[in-house]
Amino acid sequence: MTTIFVTERLAAILPRVRDFVQQELFPLESAYLHGSFRALEPTLQDLRSRVKDMGLWAPHLPMEDGGLGLTLTEFGLLSEELGRSPLGHYTFNCQAPDIGNMELLHQFATPEQKHIFLEPLMRGDIRSCFAMTEPEFAGSNPVNMATTATREGNEYVINGHKWFTSSADGASFAVTMAVTNPDEAPHKRASMILVPTSTSGFTLVRNIKIMGEEGDSYASHAEVRFENCRVPVANLLGKEGAGFALAQHRLGPGRIHHCMRFVGISERALDMMCRYAVSRELAPGKPLASKQIIQAWIAESRAEIDAARYMVLHTADGIDKHGAQAMKESISTIKFFVANVLQHVLDRAIQTHGALGITDDTILSYWYRHERAARIYDGPDEVHKTVLARTILKQYGYNVEM
Amino acid sequence: MTTIFVTERLAAILPRVRDFVQQELFPLESAYLHGSFRALEPTLQDLRSRVKDMGLWAPHLPMEDGGLGLTLTEFGLLSEELGRSPLGHYTFNCQAPDIGNMELLHQFATPEQKHIFLEPLMRGDIRSCFAMTEPEFAGSNPVNMATTATREGNEYVINGHKWFTSSADGASFAVTMAVTNPDEAPHKRASMILVPTSTSGFTLVRNIKIMGEEGDSYASHAEVRFENCRVPVANLLGKEGAGFALAQHRLGPGRIHHCMRFVGISERALDMMCRYAVSRELAPGKPLASKQIIQAWIAESRAEIDAARYMVLHTADGIDKHGAQAMKESISTIKFFVANVLQHVLDRAIQTHGALGITDDTILSYWYRHERAARIYDGPDEVHKTVLARTILKQYGYNVEM
Amino acid sequence: MTTIFVTERLAAILPRVRDFVQQELFPLESAYLHGSFRALEPTLQDLRSRVKDMGLWAPHLPMEDGGLGLTLTEFGLLSEELGRSPLGHYTFNCQAPDIGNMELLHQFATPEQKHIFLEPLMRGDIRSCFAMTEPEFAGSNPVNMATTATREGNEYVINGHKWFTSSADGASFAVTMAVTNPDEAPHKRASMILVPTSTSGFTLVRNIKIMGEEGDSYASHAEVRFENCRVPVANLLGKEGAGFALAQHRLGPGRIHHCMRFVGISERALDMMCRYAVSRELAPGKPLASKQIIQAWIAESRAEIDAARYMVLHTADGIDKHGAQAMKESISTIKFFVANVLQHVLDRAIQTHGALGITDDTILSYWYRHERAARIYDGPDEVHKTVLARTILKQYGYNVEM
Amino acid sequence: MTTIFVTERLAAILPRVRDFVQQELFPLESAYLHGSFRALEPTLQDLRSRVKDMGLWAPHLPMEDGGLGLTLTEFGLLSEELGRSPLGHYTFNCQAPDIGNMELLHQFATPEQKHIFLEPLMRGDIRSCFAMTEPEFAGSNPVNMATTATREGNEYVINGHKWFTSSADGASFAVTMAVTNPDEAPHKRASMILVPTSTSGFTLVRNIKIMGEEGDSYASHAEVRFENCRVPVANLLGKEGAGFALAQHRLGPGRIHHCMRFVGISERALDMMCRYAVSRELAPGKPLASKQIIQAWIAESRAEIDAARYMVLHTADGIDKHGAQAMKESISTIKFFVANVLQHVLDRAIQTHGALGITDDTILSYWYRHERAARIYDGPDEVHKTVLARTILKQYGYNVEM
Repeated sequence: MTTIFVTERLAAILPRVRDFVQQELFPLESAYLHGSFRALEPTLQDLRSRVKDMGLWAPHLPMEDGGLGLTLTEFGLLSEELGRSPLGHYTFNCQAPDIGNMELLHQFATPEQKHIFLEPLMRGDIRSCFAMTEPEFAGSNPVNMATTATREGNEYVINGHKWFTSSADGASFAVTMAVTNPDEAPHKRASMILVPTSTSGFTLVRNIKIMGEEGDSYASHAEVRFENCRVPVANLLGKEGAGFALAQHRLGPGRIHHCMRFVGISERALDMMCRYAVSRELAPGKPLASKQIIQAWIAESRAEIDAARYMVLHTADGIDKHGAQAMKESISTIKFFVANVLQHVLDRAIQTHGALGITDDTILSYWYRHERAARIYDGPDEVHKTVLARTILKQYGYNVEM
Repeated sequence: MTTIFVTERLAAILPRVRDFVQQELFPLESAYLHGSFRALEPTLQDLRSRVKDMGLWAPHLPMEDGGLGLTLTEFGLLSEELGRSPLGHYTFNCQAPDIGNMELLHQFATPEQKHIFLEPLMRGDIRSCFAMTEPEFAGSNPVNMATTATREGNEYVINGHKWFTSSADGASFAVTMAVTNPDEAPHKRASMILVPTSTSGFTLVRNIKIMGEEGDSYASHAEVRFENCRVPVANLLGKEGAGFALAQHRLGPGRIHHCMRFVGISERALDMMCRYAVSRELAPGKPLASKQIIQAWIAESRAEIDAARYMVLHTADGIDKHGAQAMKESISTIKFFVANVLQHVLDRAIQTHGALGITDDTILSYWYRHERAARIYDGPDEVHKTVLARTILKQYGYNVEM
Repeated sequence: MTTIFVTERLAAILPRVRDFVQQELFPLESAYLHGSFRALEPTLQDLRSRVKDMGLWAPHLPMEDGGLGLTLTEFGLLSEELGRSPLGHYTFNCQAPDIGNMELLHQFATPEQKHIFLEPLMRGDIRSCFAMTEPEFAGSNPVNMATTATREGNEYVINGHKWFTSSADGASFAVTMAVTNPDEAPHKRASMILVPTSTSGFTLVRNIKIMGEEGDSYASHAEVRFENCRVPVANLLGKEGAGFALAQHRLGPGRIHHCMRFVGISERALDMMCRYAVSRELAPGKPLASKQIIQAWIAESRAEIDAARYMVLHTADGIDKHGAQAMKESISTIKFFVANVLQHVLDRAIQTHGALGITDDTILSYWYRHERAARIYDGPDEVHKTVLARTILKQYGYNVEM
Repeated sequence: MTTIFVTERLAAILPRVRDFVQQELFPLESAYLHGSFRALEPTLQDLRSRVKDMGLWAPHLPMEDGGLGLTLTEFGLLSEELGRSPLGHYTFNCQAPDIGNMELLHQFATPEQKHIFLEPLMRGDIRSCFAMTEPEFAGSNPVNMATTATREGNEYVINGHKWFTSSADGASFAVTMAVTNPDEAPHKRASMILVPTSTSGFTLVRNIKIMGEEGDSYASHAEVRFENCRVPVANLLGKEGAGFALAQHRLGPGRIHHCMRFVGISERALDMMCRYAVSRELAPGKPLASKQIIQAWIAESRAEIDAARYMVLHTADGIDKHGAQAMKESISTIKFFVANVLQHVLDRAIQTHGALGITDDTILSYWYRHERAARIYDGPDEVHKTVLARTILKQYGYNVEM
């Protein structure tokens, strides 16, 4: 769909990305579903080289860092295209959590930190992870955190327990949230510290089995432990106590990336639904597409996806023009709205496919089970709704307690 | 909400319209709810004069006809503001069905027809109606129509039975759909004919009682009969057999008007919901707004209304730039999407108001009952979904039968 | 539908009631919709006589009081039949609020009170009303009540402001909740007092306009004021401070009555939906019933209504066998569950009828607008859900604050 | 919940079953989720012995066959208890597809077939599978079937391609649907044939990867091929051409078993939701259970599960008393109604658990992904709705085409 948000330079890039995803990545999905991410890595490394050759590598990065220098809105549109395959973002080196970590390091790292951590990340030579969530505390309240980093001489000694440290398996370092200043106000207690995963005291306990799959390598979510894990104070990112502020920074654009990825998945699912509806026959000459309920699902999906895309792109455009703070209300809105559109569309696509839809013979069930998380991570729907209501009700003089 | 669609000239107009609607029209609503439209007309005539003085009269008209020369997108935004009160569009002389009739006459009327019918309509001296729907036939199939206009010499003799001829009570003329060419292909059988309501043989049978109210004057929906009703052939609008083509013409912008009016109603309802939530106490110091479900309703309404507005404005913008044909898919989409948002928001607003919400002490129940029609008129949701699916599935090589 | 709950004696009665409602009351509905309840009263009085002659009068009453001595379950099933018409319960003299008042008086009135108030009520010679809800306080918190009844000698002097005093117009007396013991614990402050509406100081301010209609006589909801309204202390019902306890007593069976009435309305709406679907043609030989979405609505409505009926009957049966306290959880459940089924079924029935569905040419739009209240009166859905959750979570050791 | 359907003998059995499931099977679930069914089999065999010792083995069987001789309603209630764990039915030897096959063989097998196939099945010495669905044809139209069984002398030669042949991995024989009489009317073409899986020409192609898991042994769904697979004609079950009739027979009680299993899963999920809600703290002393939305989910789940259970038990009771044909409408209804309740309850339970809910650290995500099929197998929701509507509309004189 061409919208007013597609700039001229993007109009030149989008079809190339779309073709690449479709021709190179779609065919790999079956191997991914029936094998492992690790087994696919050699193939993906080749494709990554081709992406570099095409000049599309790490498109979110500024031009001086080898990226495409896109606005957030432009990257959003590109993210939609990449989102049509679970292999898209990785192949272009703009996959979460690395993309968020790159953005953080780009803005807040010291030159030395950039040299050690950011540069190989931008080149795609290493991967990283982000260790924030703790199993013992509800994720939506960042004040509850038990991991500590105690300064001893020139080192931080980190102790704590994290989970949903996505992609830790094979990562070179973990951006780690830990309490450094326990006596400060709640939002000023934690810091972000760069912890090489080879550090003694850092243990990957397990790749958590999620929806039936442990996953591996990039495609995994780890439980990790820090036990007297010592890193130099030079590994502090930004200032002491700035952890939450940095985390907030990370969230704004991240929301757009996720939501446009959801839009991409939804478009793929709708496309698959249409293809299957016209080809699957209930009786000779009478395809599924002849049924009014299937038609209604297609129409409802079209409407909801369009609505979702417009909302996210307007929000991105607002952030580009006025900054994230000005778009606070919209940033809360898109997360729950788009995650729910995604779930509805996937559900309809699976139901349309019948028995085939629940097998791994299509990509649909992969998303059905793994994107159930979309309504949970980065804050569950209910928290986002309350946050949005709080912003609105403040204008009516009422202060919602969280 | 300031969007990228608010042009500079509109940014100057919108707050004036909003203030006028809020200060002059909101206070009249209670009288309207407890009295009649007719009783309110003298007051509304005064306000219409003030709107003329303010230079905001008939904003949909081209400048040369005394309007504001707005794009469809701009008028959509203005329509949202007017839609916040059921008295808005009338006071600015851009109310359905007159606005659609003005557009038709402007494009297709002869100079003489313009002089007789259009000019007094544009001045607000008279009102008009549109007689298309027939009780015996499902509205969504325009081929089924029994009203005939048989040519005898210089006259058409019209016989037929219509209903939902909105605002016929007090209207000066009816734009009437009748079969003139029964032997043509289905979509080329009917013509539009201008029938003065004073013509012998034109009978207003009744204002149909709808959701408990007969209504009156502009605020009514009539059943009418044509019995050997004779009008000069000069009253033919456009060409013979062009009725459906003209009706389609009327629908495109009409869809935007309606949908932006729905957005305006939804915004008003959400505003009322917030106001009531912060002021109604469940216990001392504990307002309704403290309840998480109320907060969720506010957030969900905010999200849905934003989504609806973006979709409609993008569609309007597309029509402005590329024409209605290019936006066919979106025009089908917005009708059912926005009508359903409207219904959800109204339902939540009423539930928030509790017992008060079902009384006529607020405007909510008026919309609740009268805008139930939004999912039916101009084609029920189900027809729009099928039409949209047909457009989509055609791209996959399948032809949906309607 | 024959269920295991239909006893032998009821199996003999139900078809007679059904036929009566269908043959005598359905034909009166149009006059009711286009006229007033008062205008219909002479006709209804005749029908009431016939009901007496048939031996079906006041079926909820014990046999010794001239009723049928039904169990709550049996009366529920009969209530479903009566609920198919808005005139059903009135014609059989088991209409709310009189039925609730009869039950109260039967259990708690003194012989003299019974003679003056209950007997003419049971005979259908007079009507009554129930004055509890106050506009200034959220109905769901009965502790918030400003109406007072101060004892002066042998009289209570009542001052206060009530609304939604249903059927006050034409009622002979009002069962009135007022605070008599302000210093007691919250739930022991109020009493029920029998106030003849002819008492000086009792004013019917207005019949509140609800969903566009003021209504009249039995079919109305009044705002009333008590200004130094004096009644003898002998008019106290039960004991001082027992008001809330009595109100709770009134609620149990009342919930069953309402919910089975909702089931009756739903069955009627589904029946109308089916009739219309098979008769309304989209094209020659192709009725609405051929559309899959209409079929799905019929199926979903059938499923939901069955579910609703089973739940209510099981609850009634449980109350009959084990008392209301034992069925507390179910009594909370049915109210919100069945009210929502009703709303869904009505919405589908209207959508199926298209434009006709929003007119008063069928009974559907009457229920659509007036039964919107079903999700509000006797406690809004949200309160019932919280109450139910509280009962459940107590078993897990958690005490939900209301 | 004690309902009127719990007979005295069942009241004695249910708590024993519940305790066994809770104490013996719940603790095994984690091993199942993180390991394989096969690895668990030795443990399960021990438990099966204990079930035999307790006299609860194969409770669906008549007493003379060593079962409990339960009515369908009673078995339904027991099935709910077993359904609380994915290991329940297997441990009691009443798991699908074996239970359906036992019922079939019991009614239609020859003495010799019973000896060879049924008796070891009843003893739990072997397992079986049911080969009907074919990947090339929409499952909801049983007329479309390509597998053939051609008679050659004393043998059937079977050729065909099946999938979703559940539990074929490790099964001793497959009840196989194949066209034996291609020239008969569509519903009289197929027969059921007992095919030992050791027969040459029977190939288990793969355990289909479903929702990320291939599964194994009993917990699997196979694709199988028949290539000139020869079995004696004595292996014909019932008569030639009776395949569909037998399949229908199999469906009636099977529907009750499935639906009560769904109820059991839903109860477990609701229980887990409540337990987690009261124990997970958002802040010290403020558990999840304090949030109104969580409370609403608990209440809605309670209501929906109760509704589902009542519907299924009434249907079972009707079948017990009047036969499956008389309950046709209800049998169509319960499938889609209960499967959707299940999905809603699971979704809420997962959302309540947050990140934990999508991991395999609880049983919820197992059901979330594997019971997505509940809305598809045995006919998708949409087919059941159409079937139900057809039954209803027939009473209004309209014949719905499928």
